[in-house]
Amino acid sequence: MLNLFYAAHTCALASHIALEEAGADYTLTRISFASADQRKPEYLAINPKGRVPALVTDRGVLTETPAMLAYIAQIYPQAKLAPLNDAFAFAQAQAFNSYLCSTVHVAHAHRMRGYRWVEADDTHSLEAMKKKVPQSVYEAFALIEQHLLAGPWVLGEAYSICDAYLFTLAQWLEADGVDPTRLPRVAEHRRRVGERPAVQRALAVELAPVA
Amino acid sequence: MLNLFYAAHTCALASHIALEEAGADYTLTRISFASADQRKPEYLAINPKGRVPALVTDRGVLTETPAMLAYIAQIYPQAKLAPLNDAFAFAQAQAFNSYLCSTVHVAHAHRMRGYRWVEADDTHSLEAMKKKVPQSVYEAFALIEQHLLAGPWVLGEAYSICDAYLFTLAQWLEADGVDPTRLPRVAEHRRRVGERPAVQRALAVELAPVA
Repeated sequence: MLNLFYAAHTCALASHIALEEAGADYTLTRISFASADQRKPEYLAINPKGRVPALVTDRGVLTETPAMLAYIAQIYPQAKLAPLNDAFAFAQAQAFNSYLCSTVHVAHAHRMRGYRWVEADDTHSLEAMKKKVPQSVYEAFALIEQHLLAGPWVLGEAYSICDAYLFTLAQWLEADGVDPTRLPRVAEHRRRVGERPAVQRALAVELAPVA
Repeated sequence: MLNLFYAAHTCALASHIALEEAGADYTLTRISFASADQRKPEYLAINPKGRVPALVTDRGVLTETPAMLAYIAQIYPQAKLAPLNDAFAFAQAQAFNSYLCSTVHVAHAHRMRGYRWVEADDTHSLEAMKKKVPQSVYEAFALIEQHLLAGPWVLGEAYSICDAYLFTLAQWLEADGVDPTRLPRVAEHRRRVGERPAVQRALAVELAPVA
């Protein structure tokens, strides 16, 4: 049995969607960033990085979205969420997810998490980082728009874990100050992914009012 | 036939080492950051990201170190560079590489590439980023030291692509202002990886004087 630790409005949504798409047998544990749950000893015992997502399996805990997505695709091969039997195509999927993780998500993180890279009381630098987010996030997505999104899905004709992940990060465009109409192919992709029942189920759970 | 585009002193070394460890049939193309080769149209036609590494294959170009490393491990299975037949163990390897790519490398990049996240003429913010690098890089490596490095190799008893990648990023510790003696397990791992003939061959090529 898998248990996904997530927080709303985070990249954990990608793994949540993948689990839904796979028809996986899993449970969810929601943590609250507002309560700083991710810094509490109980959570750090699960994931010493103090981040979400974390996927608890019978063998141990997995972290890092690209690794978790590939894992979900591999243990539920019947869901065909990645080109598992073609090393080159699988590497292309992994390269896409790695770019989202290390470039797109990192550009976004400079809006709210700038204290990771400058002192937390350096308001000038924190503001300077925030100010560049619309440009750096736009440029990262523009590369996807122009070069990486084969269409209709990221890898072409087959829906995959890459689509769940791109959809997840594209949810942040407006808050990051990027006008989605400047990225028409990404916007159309986002609309198409949002129509999938598995995606709607995952969103409904994450966005439901907390009791 | 594979062709690896690399620049010296970059994370391309990890893929170079993996190719050597695999006994791969490959060629190397060196590009110079000093000449800004990575921004020239010839190179952008290969990798529109304007970064290294890039691996040209008969099927197309692959980028992103974690994806390239897993690909090399998969197409040369006899080299046993990753736990290919165990989805959980493979995911752990991928999670490790993803952490190096999106947290360790990103922390390091704030020393020289801060202009990605603030305006290039904002000297205050660029300096503020540089100043935090010793702390943020140390903390990222401390998590590896304490939680992720199983020993003797990253994944335990078997050498893997994770070792080549960790070794590559650990080469930057001194320049990032981190005293390696504060990370004794990482330092010992680096020494051990550095003794491998494949690693010595890759380093000899990358560090040889350019004709």
